[in-house]
Amino acid sequence: MPGDVRPGQRRRRGRRPAGEDTRAAILDAACSEFAERGFDATSVRGVARRAGVDPALVRHYFDSKADLLAAGLVPQGLDPRVVLGALGDGPRDTMGERLARLVLAVWDTDEGRARLRTVLSGALSADPAAGVFVDYLRRTVFGSIASVLDAPDADVRVALVASQVVGLLVTRVVIGLEPVASLPRDDVARLVGPTLQRYLTGDLAVGVDEEQNSSHGE
Amino acid sequence: MPGDVRPGQRRRRGRRPAGEDTRAAILDAACSEFAERGFDATSVRGVARRAGVDPALVRHYFDSKADLLAAGLVPQGLDPRVVLGALGDGPRDTMGERLARLVLAVWDTDEGRARLRTVLSGALSADPAAGVFVDYLRRTVFGSIASVLDAPDADVRVALVASQVVGLLVTRVVIGLEPVASLPRDDVARLVGPTLQRYLTGDLAVGVDEEQNSSHGE
Repeated sequence: MPGDVRPGQRRRRGRRPAGEDTRAAILDAACSEFAERGFDATSVRGVARRAGVDPALVRHYFDSKADLLAAGLVPQGLDPRVVLGALGDGPRDTMGERLARLVLAVWDTDEGRARLRTVLSGALSADPAAGVFVDYLRRTVFGSIASVLDAPDADVRVALVASQVVGLLVTRVVIGLEPVASLPRDDVARLVGPTLQRYLTGDLAVGVDEEQNSSHGE
Repeated sequence: MPGDVRPGQRRRRGRRPAGEDTRAAILDAACSEFAERGFDATSVRGVARRAGVDPALVRHYFDSKADLLAAGLVPQGLDPRVVLGALGDGPRDTMGERLARLVLAVWDTDEGRARLRTVLSGALSADPAAGVFVDYLRRTVFGSIASVLDAPDADVRVALVASQVVGLLVTRVVIGLEPVASLPRDDVARLVGPTLQRYLTGDLAVGVDEEQNSSHGE
């Protein structure tokens, strides 16, 4: 939705530097191939042919087929590092709800649904893809949240956040599970926000993490 | 894992009445077909051929291809209504953690991973399948939890529970997201339990639900 465009996110067909246009064309072609053929039957060569570019150019922008898959998750022009870095600018005790709003603004749209569907199918279809996909999330999305947290147990916290965010996206956006699928985004953010807040900054109080967490009381 | 068999759940290859053997053989054949061909290319006729039975017999046990997909999610012999009904027997304030343990006992296994992977791929591949899949969840899993809750806003609560459970299963079991994927099940249950507890019995305090929730204080 146009009203939901965030800083760092550009509209799909706006003015873009030439390199970004090429990258976008390759990514579009890849998403179409994944959707039509599935991850396993899609090749870098086929993506290049569809995008009307040389396979070497595809490899210039993307390390592998799995990298193409992962890049397809994030809307064109949106840099997760910039967007998620902004979480650190506001009050610490509202991070959970702000993260929920951010996630819904990016993926709770028709385009987001298509992206999620494609990427999830691909991630499920073959182990190597799932691995690279998770690596990509680690480098971009998770890394950004962890750096905002700056806590010794940030990895566990971010993985827990991912469990709720992925589940919310799959049930509300991809599968359309009612009645949550029809609730206004604001309500969903308020319902799920406290979960994310606890995972981000709460006292998790589990085994090995117990000592560390004493500095993150709610 | 044998140690995790619950009341109402029978081992795969134990003594079973003839009808259940046939049903299990059909379900096995369907899961293999889904895994090899994907949901769209799988047919009831193909499943029947693989199971060595008449297509009419497949239709006797399962309403549709999508019904086969949904039935493949739950391990043979496990009746979600019986298992989840037991949640109501224990203390109300430990339901969240007990539900987390139950979910992990059923699906955090090699067999569970295979089932989740197959069903998720199928549910993502075509809208009608996703619809039937969700209907199945509604009738069995969600309905059982809602009846234990016996609250006017049980539907919202159960959908929120589903968002966390689905996300936990996808990130820990299917994708293997670390470090949560390597944590002992007990730790995971303690980390995610409070989230489920709040969704099940906590004060959600969102918009339309506000009045209803006054009777469910934490």
